[in-house]
Amino acid sequence: MNQSMLALTFDGTVKLQEVPRPQPRAGEVLIRVRLTGICQTDINITRGYKGFHGILGHEFVGEVVEAHTSAWLGQRVVGEINIACGTCDRCRRGLPRHCARRRVLGIWEKDGALAEFITLPEANLHPVPANVPDAFAVFTEPLAAALEILEQTPIGPDFRVLIIGDGKLGLLISLVLRLNGCELHLVGHHPEKMDFIEARGVQVHVAEGFGEKEFDVVIEASGSPAGWRMAIETVRPHGIIIAKSTYHGAFDFNPAALVVPEITVVGSRCGPFPPALRLLARRLINPKKLISRVYPLVQAEEALRYATRRGVLKVLVEMPQYESVKS
Amino acid sequence: MNQSMLALTFDGTVKLQEVPRPQPRAGEVLIRVRLTGICQTDINITRGYKGFHGILGHEFVGEVVEAHTSAWLGQRVVGEINIACGTCDRCRRGLPRHCARRRVLGIWEKDGALAEFITLPEANLHPVPANVPDAFAVFTEPLAAALEILEQTPIGPDFRVLIIGDGKLGLLISLVLRLNGCELHLVGHHPEKMDFIEARGVQVHVAEGFGEKEFDVVIEASGSPAGWRMAIETVRPHGIIIAKSTYHGAFDFNPAALVVPEITVVGSRCGPFPPALRLLARRLINPKKLISRVYPLVQAEEALRYATRRGVLKVLVEMPQYESVKS
Ligand SMILES: [Zn+2]
Ligand SMILES: [Zn+2]
Ligand SMILES: [Zn+2]
Ligand SMILES: [Zn+2]
Repeated sequence: MNQSMLALTFDGTVKLQEVPRPQPRAGEVLIRVRLTGICQTDINITRGYKGFHGILGHEFVGEVVEAHTSAWLGQRVVGEINIACGTCDRCRRGLPRHCARRRVLGIWEKDGALAEFITLPEANLHPVPANVPDAFAVFTEPLAAALEILEQTPIGPDFRVLIIGDGKLGLLISLVLRLNGCELHLVGHHPEKMDFIEARGVQVHVAEGFGEKEFDVVIEASGSPAGWRMAIETVRPHGIIIAKSTYHGAFDFNPAALVVPEITVVGSRCGPFPPALRLLARRLINPKKLISRVYPLVQAEEALRYATRRGVLKVLVEMPQYESVKS
Repeated sequence: MNQSMLALTFDGTVKLQEVPRPQPRAGEVLIRVRLTGICQTDINITRGYKGFHGILGHEFVGEVVEAHTSAWLGQRVVGEINIACGTCDRCRRGLPRHCARRRVLGIWEKDGALAEFITLPEANLHPVPANVPDAFAVFTEPLAAALEILEQTPIGPDFRVLIIGDGKLGLLISLVLRLNGCELHLVGHHPEKMDFIEARGVQVHVAEGFGEKEFDVVIEASGSPAGWRMAIETVRPHGIIIAKSTYHGAFDFNPAALVVPEITVVGSRCGPFPPALRLLARRLINPKKLISRVYPLVQAEEALRYATRRGVLKVLVEMPQYESVKS
């Protein structure tokens, strides 16, 4: 059977086109995608990041429609994006997300989720609790990435914390970090994007003229050299900078800026799914305000363009035969 | 009384000259210096680092000759180099080495120890155990800086560790880290400098063609952009880079190199004196092989020049009326 499906592909240019439906390998399931989020990484890929060619998209929620074990069949799932070999040194050391031979959904040698169907290993799947709607479940992957910060750096209620960047990532991180009661600041360029965060007790600032200093932890989520410079200027001696953005270009940097004040920089990427799903199920995180627009898959090219606009937050793409999440 | 003394000063050029003997302020003692080490930071200052003008030198051992409390009088001492205000937020938070108003011996707004006399607050002093000779005690400050690594990052015997740089700092760090039995590697450019370290169980490598990877901890002690690049290439995902050198120039850097493999970079500067003195007293650290030459103060200009030569390790300067340590 040569079944096809619609998918948003990138091979130097972005194209919505019919492609063959993927075949599950051993240990994999076939998932009918319900809803996919567009991430800054998707946008960066279309600008050349990673040199990825294939189907875009890695933030999804879907339903298992073919599986080797009946336990997964019909389950609504989200999926971890790093596909590990399971046998290399890094996998054996317990770092499957850093597997030397990993493929990454929609990012590296593995077709992504801006498509009607994807395949994933059973090991990557997490069932979605019944009370988490698709429009929330689709935030599991970026929420897990935000939670990775707490896996790497305990942040107590007595901490003064600054988040740099009012994009989707910075805002999502602020929703997570406000939970523990730390003194939380967010600095960005778009007051209108920060309003709902301010209403949740986060102190928001406009970047121009921002002068606060001596933060215990500064989280760089802007992806710009200016954000990196601000991080070094605002963190206290012995403080911690969490580097959360993958798409800075190279820029001039002098390591003495870290050595003299004994600053620690923690690179932070993907995180754990189970606590992300738990926070969503317990309604401790409500990402509704982060959704800017929902497009049908047939308009995925337009959705991607819209996602690159200044001030736009999360853009979702819903698959055919799947009713709107806008309600 | 206008007593004078001989001192090595820098005001754009290095000069050995007669200057007024310093007067202790409240809470300070007057120390007759016995022996002073020349550090890479001294050399960097003469190349413009920090814009410091004054008497050079911060690694010393001496004897208290004037004190408010008799307890210190006649004591052989070493001294912490950061002079804290004791009242700013950072001091109150327990970070006196990062005091916002600190002066730093021979580095920042405080005359240094390449002189017959210095003053220091009593709070900065540590008595030298009787069984630690001056030629070892003078290594207390750089040894404390090496020990700061262990204050910041526990390094267990099961760790694979790489030290980049076979200068005084890298070699001293290797003497410290070998104590706990970790798998320790050092990479440098001068096999003849690394021989004695190899004899102590450290695996030494010449930089050209060095290909080992996946170190749990990499310590950058070379101060060069090439060292920084090697650190990023050799550390494993989730691993730690300790940035120990203060005098890199600025160079192109892309933070994504830290984010994707989730590397942590720990800036590391000055460290604790008491464990450094304890390691010396217990003969767990023997820095004798690190001493390249000893000069009298009258030849301090020549000593500084000699210290800049390729392959030279620690150069010591002994003060007048103090018998040679060369024996
Ligand atoms: Zn993403
Ligand atoms: Zn693997
Ligand atoms: Zn020094
Ligand atoms: Zn202070």
